[in-house]
Amino acid sequence: MNEKEFLTAKERALNSLNKAFREEKTDNNIISLLNIINNIKEFYTTSSCEGRTVLLEIPRIGDKRRAKFLGKWHDTVNIDDIKEASKKAEKGLIWLLAQSPVVHIGCANINIADKLLKISIASGFKHSGLKSSKRKYIVEICSTERLDSPVGKDGFLFCNEDYLQLLVDISNEIYRVSKVKIHKLELNLRQNFV
Amino acid sequence: MNEKEFLTAKERALNSLNKAFREEKTDNNIISLLNIINNIKEFYTTSSCEGRTVLLEIPRIGDKRRAKFLGKWHDTVNIDDIKEASKKAEKGLIWLLAQSPVVHIGCANINIADKLLKISIASGFKHSGLKSSKRKYIVEICSTERLDSPVGKDGFLFCNEDYLQLLVDISNEIYRVSKVKIHKLELNLRQNFV
Repeated sequence: MNEKEFLTAKERALNSLNKAFREEKTDNNIISLLNIINNIKEFYTTSSCEGRTVLLEIPRIGDKRRAKFLGKWHDTVNIDDIKEASKKAEKGLIWLLAQSPVVHIGCANINIADKLLKISIASGFKHSGLKSSKRKYIVEICSTERLDSPVGKDGFLFCNEDYLQLLVDISNEIYRVSKVKIHKLELNLRQNFV
Repeated sequence: MNEKEFLTAKERALNSLNKAFREEKTDNNIISLLNIINNIKEFYTTSSCEGRTVLLEIPRIGDKRRAKFLGKWHDTVNIDDIKEASKKAEKGLIWLLAQSPVVHIGCANINIADKLLKISIASGFKHSGLKSSKRKYIVEICSTERLDSPVGKDGFLFCNEDYLQLLVDISNEIYRVSKVKIHKLELNLRQNFV
């Protein structure tokens, strides 16, 4: 990808991000990070999730295509949130997932991509990697914290209260750790690029 | 990385893999896949795991460095395996993890890396990606099936028998799905490269 192609791709990505901002489709906790990145000449964000807790109904292991979201939270959760969302369940296993943030960043060249990758890893996003295709350098910023636990089946939660509380506590801890890491990454980006 | 550097890197990787074969440190279920890949001129495997079920003691969320393996199985498991392994637990949360296979492959150039990536995704390894550094093209083959569930604390399992059986069933299902996908990938690699 030459400089002109990079600038065109960045413009397109920013237009679509601004549309998402206007429609309030962007996760609030990550907007400041996205702005920092997009203000750096050599980068643009292509997709992002600030991290979330999800209640998911999955008919078969790994069958994400037929998975149904029962609840989705970009914040801490409590047991009642989970119970309420589980009422929409019908058939299959119900899973509680806590996912740490993911951001994909288009980079102008491989040297700057390498630099971003090192800073991301140093900020705690240990699972980050450089994902390329023939024409693009995309850095994926992501971390290792996660929870993937079955909590119910065929419309009913089968966990007892104590266990569900533990899973909720773990999900909230992952959410808090994620916020700290996002903040650390923001600081490190400012120090190194701004 | 030029051709000479690639060949040197491949030779080094194969020497270290052969050493692992001799010392029986390589996962059995993945040897045939590794052989197929390493027999293709433009590829070499750098690391691999055939997928596994793990009982892990983790003092804090995401703190993998201080995590302790209580049990590790490259096969189906049963409840007694988990109970026996849990006796080694001391302090912190005990997690049951089921992980699908991961293989890293050094590629001679970006075109061949792209081709391998497409074949991997078509074989069911939907989470595969091209991880590059300045000088290397590494394809990471991996999938989406996983289980990450807390099952005990401070030396004791807190799950009831039914729930533990469900987690064991899910782990075994992930193991079986992984074997099917490895087999499919082998077939697709033979068709496209051999």
